Amino acid sequence: MAPTPTEVDQKAINTIRLLAADMTAKANSGHPGAPMGLAPVAHTLWQYVMKFNSKNPNWFARDRFVLSNGHACALQYSMLYLYGYDYSLNDLEHFRKIGSKTPGHPERELPGIEVTTGPLGQGISNAVGLAIAEKHLAATFNKPDHKIIDNYTYAILGDGCLMEGVSHEAMAVAGHLQLGKLIAIYDDNHITIDGDTKIAFTEDVRKRVASYGWHILEVERGNTDVTEIYNAIEEAKKVDDKPTMICVKTIIGYGSFNQGTHGVHGSPLKADDIAHMKKEWGFNPEESFAVPKEVADLAKSRQEQGVKFEAQWNEEFKAYAAKYPNEAAELSRRIKGELPAGWEKSLPVYKPTDSAVASRKLSQLVLDDINSALPELVSGSADLTGSNLTNWKDVVSFQPPSTKLGDYSGRYMHYGVREHGMVAIMNGMDAYGGIIAAGGTFLNFVSYAAGAVRLSALSGHGIIIIATHDSIGLGEDGPTHQPIETLAHFRATPNVMVWRPADGNETSAAYKVAVESRHTPSILALSRQNLPQLEGSSIEKASKGAYVLNEDVTDPELIIASTGSEVYIARDAAALLAKQGKKVRVVSVPDFYTFDGQSEEYKLSVFPDGVPALSVEVMSAFGWDKYTHEHFNLDHFGASGPFQDIYNALEFTPEGIAKRGIATIDYYKGKAVNSRVHNAF
Amino acid sequence: MAPTPTEVDQKAINTIRLLAADMTAKANSGHPGAPMGLAPVAHTLWQYVMKFNSKNPNWFARDRFVLSNGHACALQYSMLYLYGYDYSLNDLEHFRKIGSKTPGHPERELPGIEVTTGPLGQGISNAVGLAIAEKHLAATFNKPDHKIIDNYTYAILGDGCLMEGVSHEAMAVAGHLQLGKLIAIYDDNHITIDGDTKIAFTEDVRKRVASYGWHILEVERGNTDVTEIYNAIEEAKKVDDKPTMICVKTIIGYGSFNQGTHGVHGSPLKADDIAHMKKEWGFNPEESFAVPKEVADLAKSRQEQGVKFEAQWNEEFKAYAAKYPNEAAELSRRIKGELPAGWEKSLPVYKPTDSAVASRKLSQLVLDDINSALPELVSGSADLTGSNLTNWKDVVSFQPPSTKLGDYSGRYMHYGVREHGMVAIMNGMDAYGGIIAAGGTFLNFVSYAAGAVRLSALSGHGIIIIATHDSIGLGEDGPTHQPIETLAHFRATPNVMVWRPADGNETSAAYKVAVESRHTPSILALSRQNLPQLEGSSIEKASKGAYVLNEDVTDPELIIASTGSEVYIARDAAALLAKQGKKVRVVSVPDFYTFDGQSEEYKLSVFPDGVPALSVEVMSAFGWDKYTHEHFNLDHFGASGPFQDIYNALEFTPEGIAKRGIATIDYYKGKAVNSRVHNAF
Ligand SMILES: [Ca+2]
Ligand SMILES: [Ca+2]
Repeated sequence: MAPTPTEVDQKAINTIRLLAADMTAKANSGHPGAPMGLAPVAHTLWQYVMKFNSKNPNWFARDRFVLSNGHACALQYSMLYLYGYDYSLNDLEHFRKIGSKTPGHPERELPGIEVTTGPLGQGISNAVGLAIAEKHLAATFNKPDHKIIDNYTYAILGDGCLMEGVSHEAMAVAGHLQLGKLIAIYDDNHITIDGDTKIAFTEDVRKRVASYGWHILEVERGNTDVTEIYNAIEEAKKVDDKPTMICVKTIIGYGSFNQGTHGVHGSPLKADDIAHMKKEWGFNPEESFAVPKEVADLAKSRQEQGVKFEAQWNEEFKAYAAKYPNEAAELSRRIKGELPAGWEKSLPVYKPTDSAVASRKLSQLVLDDINSALPELVSGSADLTGSNLTNWKDVVSFQPPSTKLGDYSGRYMHYGVREHGMVAIMNGMDAYGGIIAAGGTFLNFVSYAAGAVRLSALSGHGIIIIATHDSIGLGEDGPTHQPIETLAHFRATPNVMVWRPADGNETSAAYKVAVESRHTPSILALSRQNLPQLEGSSIEKASKGAYVLNEDVTDPELIIASTGSEVYIARDAAALLAKQGKKVRVVSVPDFYTFDGQSEEYKLSVFPDGVPALSVEVMSAFGWDKYTHEHFNLDHFGASGPFQDIYNALEFTPEGIAKRGIATIDYYKGKAVNSRVHNAF
Repeated sequence: MAPTPTEVDQKAINTIRLLAADMTAKANSGHPGAPMGLAPVAHTLWQYVMKFNSKNPNWFARDRFVLSNGHACALQYSMLYLYGYDYSLNDLEHFRKIGSKTPGHPERELPGIEVTTGPLGQGISNAVGLAIAEKHLAATFNKPDHKIIDNYTYAILGDGCLMEGVSHEAMAVAGHLQLGKLIAIYDDNHITIDGDTKIAFTEDVRKRVASYGWHILEVERGNTDVTEIYNAIEEAKKVDDKPTMICVKTIIGYGSFNQGTHGVHGSPLKADDIAHMKKEWGFNPEESFAVPKEVADLAKSRQEQGVKFEAQWNEEFKAYAAKYPNEAAELSRRIKGELPAGWEKSLPVYKPTDSAVASRKLSQLVLDDINSALPELVSGSADLTGSNLTNWKDVVSFQPPSTKLGDYSGRYMHYGVREHGMVAIMNGMDAYGGIIAAGGTFLNFVSYAAGAVRLSALSGHGIIIIATHDSIGLGEDGPTHQPIETLAHFRATPNVMVWRPADGNETSAAYKVAVESRHTPSILALSRQNLPQLEGSSIEKASKGAYVLNEDVTDPELIIASTGSEVYIARDAAALLAKQGKKVRVVSVPDFYTFDGQSEEYKLSVFPDGVPALSVEVMSAFGWDKYTHEHFNLDHFGASGPFQDIYNALEFTPEGIAKRGIATIDYYKGKAVNSRVHNAF
């Protein structure tokens, strides 16, 4: 039933506005305007709409909330503080200060923050992922008599989010998938940083979003009318086969002398402006961060309701568990993020006599073998299923049942040609919990998704990007599709694993570590071309990130360090050099990040002092210097032609590598050679 | 007047289809389906619509053509061959082979190819840039009696392009800007790689694109009806304040046994299938790459017209030059891509006594000073003008005059919050010629544009990305906005300059080299915070990419190498160390790419043997090992707080650097130290 707002509601809304004004003023930094415009929406959501328990922010059945215009976070922190999450007044007073719980943009590790936002367009895309996860787990675990998974996802987004390509991609996916429990609230204030939206944003947003298959609603009195906002949300809930965008007309910086201008967007309000608002709204102009008692009491009543919401659900879950003990145990495990005991035993293991297989195919063989042991794994592709080999036998597509192409319990996502949206959605699925999200594209086009990959790393989402066609070895598609800088890019990003397995055992190792790493995203760089199974590889050794492939060679005079599809060529080069009496160690380095985490002792055992090391990889040498003294890599773009022709032309052959190995041995003869893994501090 | 197609037209269309089938079959690789479906469109464009002179592909007044679905390039190569561009039958026969003129996706350096395409969504975005450039140069140079700049831009795009976020961004810009001479042809074939578009692409495309302000037209008989296609294009031309998208219904792989399925998308047709089509269409099934004489003659007639088109324009230009000699001389200079003599004299020069200024502001001071000397410079921002400082005093916005916000001769672009679209559009503007495109965003969000930056590098577009807020030094916005990996990413990309100037002279140097580099994109990483003017900096020295800042220090025992906002702190650290009797050289490295291009002698003079080098940069150390032995960098994300608090907390202070300098000196005492700029081969 629609609330009948009282004066206390109005007071609460103005309290939120003034908290945002005070926070940004005290910080002398931040964005007051959007929080002030959105205060009525936020008040409606927290007080009358969303189910949450602030005493247990991670209660699994909570509604999810995403502030896609993350720069408006003064709003979110104020709400979390008012509604009893673990924030103090001191946190609000230290907005945007080092060590506070109130950084410049909302970060996922903070209480009550579902996903890290700020980079525009990401939050709404994460929200699509959150809503997909809900649909999937509901379809997987609910029973006709027990809707144990049943929550809404709310997102607030602004003009900036709607302009970004990533939101286009994700919102198109949401429309196609008929995510009826996703409710986005568009802060329609006609202002962006550069000024009025008419400068650059004149599209018909409603028509555009409707074209994706969304349900569009309007709220005219967004600055004042809680009931109108509430009713629109109720209206949204009635349509269950379309996501809804509620367009709420607001005035940015409502109450300020400069309301409705971009002057209130990104800089604090002046003291006299804030004082004037406080007087106008019956607050003490001398006081900052004030929360009137009746406002606090109102919020408190909702907090108490939240405790009851969770208690009710816990009862409901008990009844579910009594009737469906296996499902309940499985859901509990997945909610906790624990892996099934022994899942890794299903990873395939190879012998050197097994046949040569492309690592993209090896990846599919892993998926074939582990998917039943790991039911939380949900795979997919950005319209390259047949190339990425991201599916497995008989996998069901995640689709609205009405399409007859699959159902919501399906574990395979068709993202369309939408790489950035895909990864941002995967981040949202990961944030929901209970799912391990994997998704594929060509390695080169992971760059399209760089913004989302970075947030995955920053927020610690354990997603798995299956990145096939990983080098010039893809051949004919040519330089537009051949990564040169991509591995360096992601190796340089904190908290990202970039696996480039050389054979079947290394591919299994990559999956083993990726699946076990629930707070680090992984990119698996996989070949289009066939790779032989290597003597000396094992899941255990590859899981260290780098290891010696030919341990039988003692006192080497040269180390050749390589990755992925070049390792077997390096091995053949070492064999050629052995015929010339040279003792050459071959080191496979499937993942820099994992190797960097090993002990100095182990690292020195792989790259010892006194032995020059030569890297071989058909990509940029950038960053290899941390391990190797010399580099046989690429400092230019690739070429279009059959794979072997390209490798031959660029001399990535046993002979070509051996030649550079000899040059390295000769150059360092008589010189002191320090292992690169040492550091002065 | 609409053409009355004859049997020869039909024969020509089937010739195009069979050339594409033969090319992909012979290569045993590539995409026959889209070329076969699009053959009637291509025939109409080349034979009846587009103005071009195949004997001078760079004739400036030509219509521009972009194949946004670049995987269909067998179509484009066939057309270029048929219409007399410098392609031979041998080139078609060597499709997708190393060294051929027919790589797997179209590349800009080839005759008749305007922009490199293949990565989906880029081509249509480039086309928006081409159309902007035309509008801008027309507004700048045309006279009421002389429309010397007056061409159309045609683009073919497919479902994949429309799904990508970059096309959303760029097409929204095109609609806002009312680019009436941009005509996009949508290959509406209902097939993507994963299968039918109903799997993931069910949006109402027409409604969506119309929402951007585009004019939408339909062609029902796209497989057969040249007249219908022609008439739609004529209809498009009648609307001059909206770009047009013509939705042409086609059947992918038209003529094949498997027409209309994704089976014909990405793999060659079988021999019997091709033979059957040849028989069906009256070709000799035994013959490949056949061009019937009447088809060749028809194309020849159009080629001859093209020679006349150019001759007419040359006459027109002569008349223009007679009446407007200054404008004609200026336009000729810009067409040739020559810079105005002495433009660089307007670059600001600083003395150490000049006040400290943020490098984003130094960048604006450069723009203030050079914009009149360099009228081809067109700047802009992705909705961050006030932060990027990418505008200059009194600059006019590039806007439709009807908006009253500017006009088409304006030199300032409001791209909206659309970074990827911005850079892809800039690539198109650069491809047109006569313009140097600059555009701003935060450095962190250049990553959103990574796909377009990469193509800029691959295609050699001399664009300038003004990337402000370049590090943790941006302060309060926090880790979501603070680049850590971004410089490494782009330093690892071939043919990209990544300037990070330390003061005013270095900022001028960055612009000098960026403007002079017409075939290498530049990213200028600029600070939010103030930087002092350095003793020892100069435009000349900084233009070498790296140089010794304090040449008075002889026989140093340590080198501290740094960039941008850390250089003055490194200088202060050296001063601290000098007080302890340590001789420390400070090296500023504003651009790796430029420094890498210097002679080994010069590089060794900066980083000599025997002296350990320590890098200092508040980003990933990844890649610094190529110059320095030790690193004081960041291997984690940043923090939200006032800039100086963050630097203090992370010890990026004179004291913090000096401490690591001492550790470096001590560690290398008595060890042989080789300069990292040596190489074995
Ligand atoms: Ca706005
Ligand atoms: Ca298609």
